[in-house]
Amino acid sequence: MQQIRTRAARSAAGLRMGIGDDCALLRTRPGEELAVTTDLSIAGRHFRLDWHSPESIGHRTLARGLSDLAAMGARPLAAFLSLGLPGELTRAKGRQPAWIDRFFDGFLALAATCKSPLAGGDLAESPLAVADIVLVGAVPRGRALLRSGARPGDLLYVTGSLGAAAAGLLRLGELAATAKDHSKPPVIPRRMLPLLSRHLHPQPRIAQGLWLQRRGLATAALDLSDGLSTDLAHLCAESGVAAEVDAAALPIAPGATMTQALHGGEDYELLFAASPASRLPRAISGVPITRVGRIVRARRSHATVSLMTSVGAEPLEPRGWQHFSPDANTPTI
Amino acid sequence: MQQIRTRAARSAAGLRMGIGDDCALLRTRPGEELAVTTDLSIAGRHFRLDWHSPESIGHRTLARGLSDLAAMGARPLAAFLSLGLPGELTRAKGRQPAWIDRFFDGFLALAATCKSPLAGGDLAESPLAVADIVLVGAVPRGRALLRSGARPGDLLYVTGSLGAAAAGLLRLGELAATAKDHSKPPVIPRRMLPLLSRHLHPQPRIAQGLWLQRRGLATAALDLSDGLSTDLAHLCAESGVAAEVDAAALPIAPGATMTQALHGGEDYELLFAASPASRLPRAISGVPITRVGRIVRARRSHATVSLMTSVGAEPLEPRGWQHFSPDANTPTI
Repeated sequence: MQQIRTRAARSAAGLRMGIGDDCALLRTRPGEELAVTTDLSIAGRHFRLDWHSPESIGHRTLARGLSDLAAMGARPLAAFLSLGLPGELTRAKGRQPAWIDRFFDGFLALAATCKSPLAGGDLAESPLAVADIVLVGAVPRGRALLRSGARPGDLLYVTGSLGAAAAGLLRLGELAATAKDHSKPPVIPRRMLPLLSRHLHPQPRIAQGLWLQRRGLATAALDLSDGLSTDLAHLCAESGVAAEVDAAALPIAPGATMTQALHGGEDYELLFAASPASRLPRAISGVPITRVGRIVRARRSHATVSLMTSVGAEPLEPRGWQHFSPDANTPTI
Repeated sequence: MQQIRTRAARSAAGLRMGIGDDCALLRTRPGEELAVTTDLSIAGRHFRLDWHSPESIGHRTLARGLSDLAAMGARPLAAFLSLGLPGELTRAKGRQPAWIDRFFDGFLALAATCKSPLAGGDLAESPLAVADIVLVGAVPRGRALLRSGARPGDLLYVTGSLGAAAAGLLRLGELAATAKDHSKPPVIPRRMLPLLSRHLHPQPRIAQGLWLQRRGLATAALDLSDGLSTDLAHLCAESGVAAEVDAAALPIAPGATMTQALHGGEDYELLFAASPASRLPRAISGVPITRVGRIVRARRSHATVSLMTSVGAEPLEPRGWQHFSPDANTPTI
């Protein structure tokens, strides 16, 4: 794995020692605390070898972890990757680069963009392809964006637009089903790239999370990995509040449906609450900010999350994204 | 997973926020840097569901990570666990506790002993059982035990004894082969517990690593996870030196062979180098320290690691422990 060692960024601010010893050594700045997150991706559940290109799987693996850092308002320090792969994915076929090399092309391109050097990990042969991503970030003490600070009266905001990842995944499945060669991911027609890119190459909202943390404007925040209906319920549970979502206000992505915007996961946008006294800009680092609802008091007789439409309020049940099988919802410990 | 959340230690020195937000938040003391390690364990390679009890698999999963911290001289701050399991292992059968509950019995018992609270992780359904362990530790800046500092003339030491884990695994395989019920791990006869415990419940040398780090006595160190012959070659490669091992000096564990002591992995003892001017105690925190050889200058015409016997020097090729299949050596990135 000397090749990976050479390819991985071996030095960066905060990273004193990367791949090659028993542990990597990281340094924070004075007054900072650490944010740590891990996410497990499994073939057939979180990605499909016959649907997703290796570059996309590498990108998506890292994006899942980076999005958790963004949701805390943390700056990335380093990434760690444990990869279990069937042997044939680690070997080049003739002049074709090995699957694993293309995986790292996608992974390391996003790592460079988001300044999160690959500092270590583990590689093992496995009959099933699995990838566990660990991100370590830093945030000034006591300034991390938590899920637990939302208060009744706060307004709810999302970055960017919703539903594109779910819409893109649906389209990807259709392409794969109608492809002639089922042994490899389908070729994506150029005209479909805009819609599919949100699924294949999601952009973690690191800059937006950092902006919110530095301004101290968000009372609570998380990233939309499981879908608005599910993730908003998490925020409400941790804050001990309820919420109302305005259907008409939702920034539904072009090509996506209201259902995909409400329940589709993996958009990796940020959902956050802020006091009505706070003035939010229309965009942060080029990504639009949209007010989508409000935090209200939790009441036993009422749903935790309600969808407000022109005809009144209806309960919005958590119907977070089911990855690739009907029972495939991935619970987080 | 509320149950795991409740079971996991939710607060400890350095751990400000554990399971329940997008990331865990950790604090170090002023002047400390962080040590981070990840190790992937895969059913059929690093453990077998029909050989190892769930408690042993939980213990061994955590021990692998803790041993890497010990090798750096770091104190544990927090552990993170990503677990992919077949659905049936997560459900109780009648009055029997679920496999996953027994896994956490073993995991959390060692976590408590080693003061490394479970601070987060991920859980997903997976056709293949996989566990990725992440350990975050802290060490005073510039004081970590590295692999790269050994110099010609240094003496080589190991903690404890060698070969017991390999001998225990061999015996465990024999028990499993002759068991009447192959659907579950064999019952271990009481008289065999001493030999098998080193394989089933290895003890990471956290206290010994911390002692070496605080005294500043070790010029290089690592943990014996792949076997002395392989791990010593790693130390030599990172330090740019060669080494001689005295066959007669090896602390071979009772019940183990010389071959198991030289090449058997998973003993999780520490191997370290120290200046001949340094006086090492006979034991650290109750674990014996044995001088096993010396560091010499690397020469092109000579093997990197030599075994010194009564008849002279012979090359000691790296023949690190092959887990469960002939090609199953687990490369580290």
